[in-house]
Amino acid sequence: MRYLIHFSYDGTNFNGYQKQPGKRCVESEFERALYNINNHTETKIVGAGRTDRGVHARCQCAHFDIDVDITLYKLKCALNSLLPDDIHVFRTETVDKDFHARFMVCKKTYKYIINCGEYNPLERNYVHQFNKSLNVESMKEAIKYFIGKHNFKSFVSEEVIKENFEREIFDASIDVNDSKVTFSFTGTGFMKYQVRNMVGTLVKVGKGKLEPSDIKRILEDESLRNLVTTIKPEGLYLDDIMYNI
Amino acid sequence: MRYLIHFSYDGTNFNGYQKQPGKRCVESEFERALYNINNHTETKIVGAGRTDRGVHARCQCAHFDIDVDITLYKLKCALNSLLPDDIHVFRTETVDKDFHARFMVCKKTYKYIINCGEYNPLERNYVHQFNKSLNVESMKEAIKYFIGKHNFKSFVSEEVIKENFEREIFDASIDVNDSKVTFSFTGTGFMKYQVRNMVGTLVKVGKGKLEPSDIKRILEDESLRNLVTTIKPEGLYLDDIMYNI
Repeated sequence: MRYLIHFSYDGTNFNGYQKQPGKRCVESEFERALYNINNHTETKIVGAGRTDRGVHARCQCAHFDIDVDITLYKLKCALNSLLPDDIHVFRTETVDKDFHARFMVCKKTYKYIINCGEYNPLERNYVHQFNKSLNVESMKEAIKYFIGKHNFKSFVSEEVIKENFEREIFDASIDVNDSKVTFSFTGTGFMKYQVRNMVGTLVKVGKGKLEPSDIKRILEDESLRNLVTTIKPEGLYLDDIMYNI
Repeated sequence: MRYLIHFSYDGTNFNGYQKQPGKRCVESEFERALYNINNHTETKIVGAGRTDRGVHARCQCAHFDIDVDITLYKLKCALNSLLPDDIHVFRTETVDKDFHARFMVCKKTYKYIINCGEYNPLERNYVHQFNKSLNVESMKEAIKYFIGKHNFKSFVSEEVIKENFEREIFDASIDVNDSKVTFSFTGTGFMKYQVRNMVGTLVKVGKGKLEPSDIKRILEDESLRNLVTTIKPEGLYLDDIMYNI
């Protein structure tokens, strides 16, 4: 049977989602738990995507195949009892044998939270502590340039080698709640550092170091990628994943 | 000069506020920082009160005397640069030589947050993960019995030896926000485990294991202290301290 699971995690103490030898990663914690559940058989888990070190997930998804007879509720309980307390599976479902957690993603939402107020030690790993004010109006004007189909190469880590950097962003917005500024992006998919680079560059607009229209110029002209800044990971959340099933 | 400082901390990685040999405590972090600021002189800090291991503070206060010529703003910056990132001083002020951060407290507010919804790994150290529903109406009825002047001996750790267990609670209330239940207590002062014992026992009312009026019976009859339950520390916040100055 193929299962799709929905889970959240605190990225603080993980070296990202993807398995790396000798490092604490979300994927390896799942493989260890599934080994036990699936009659001591090595069981591969296929995530909807990766998150970097320090990035959190309110909703990440993954699929795997196991051969044991177990109810969805018992599978959820078994996973949660075997996983560490910084990962939590909140939903389990069965899917068709041809379902794929990465290839069949229809939309993803990422959020990034910045604290423009006083430093808060209680949220130091969960909200980026910027602790200065930002011009929200100009960032709201700037973020609109990301909406639509664009070649995002200027906003992707230079390590990434791909044929196609075109992605579509359906919605991009900024919400302000007291001294917290939340950036929200919904799109077909996001490449390595893309959200952190978009937010880092929007912050330069909010500081008055770039004009809102510079976002458009950078998107159109890859030679301007030196204007792009990567913001720290601790304010970033993989917030939601939607499938067409 | 005597200074009064207001600060917050994340209690997760501290063995409480009070200094203990060989353990990481809030007080010793301050004494280390003040030693540097006060020309390498051992400098005592007097806190408004202690918090247990794992308990957080949104506003804790303390006073100390230092002999260096420093502005309030620079003192704040110096402390924050020397303190670890899970403590933050947000206000510094000068006070009279006879001001005392513990003896002159007029009111304190403690809050306790319980998550009655799905387990949240991102808040596991900041909200008590109860993850089941509670009867809020009966807890709201029960919490009223704590308001007023009472002998709180039944609700204080048995380790505590005092002549007088009488304290006054000015306000006690319960707020519900989605699946989070927040208990709030404002009073003259709270003794060891008092808030955790009051909340732990209110939770028994919320589970239907005690009647609201049992709170009154326990307050009046110390032989019923076996009905009192101590709840875990991670949902507890020292929220505010008020002085009459």
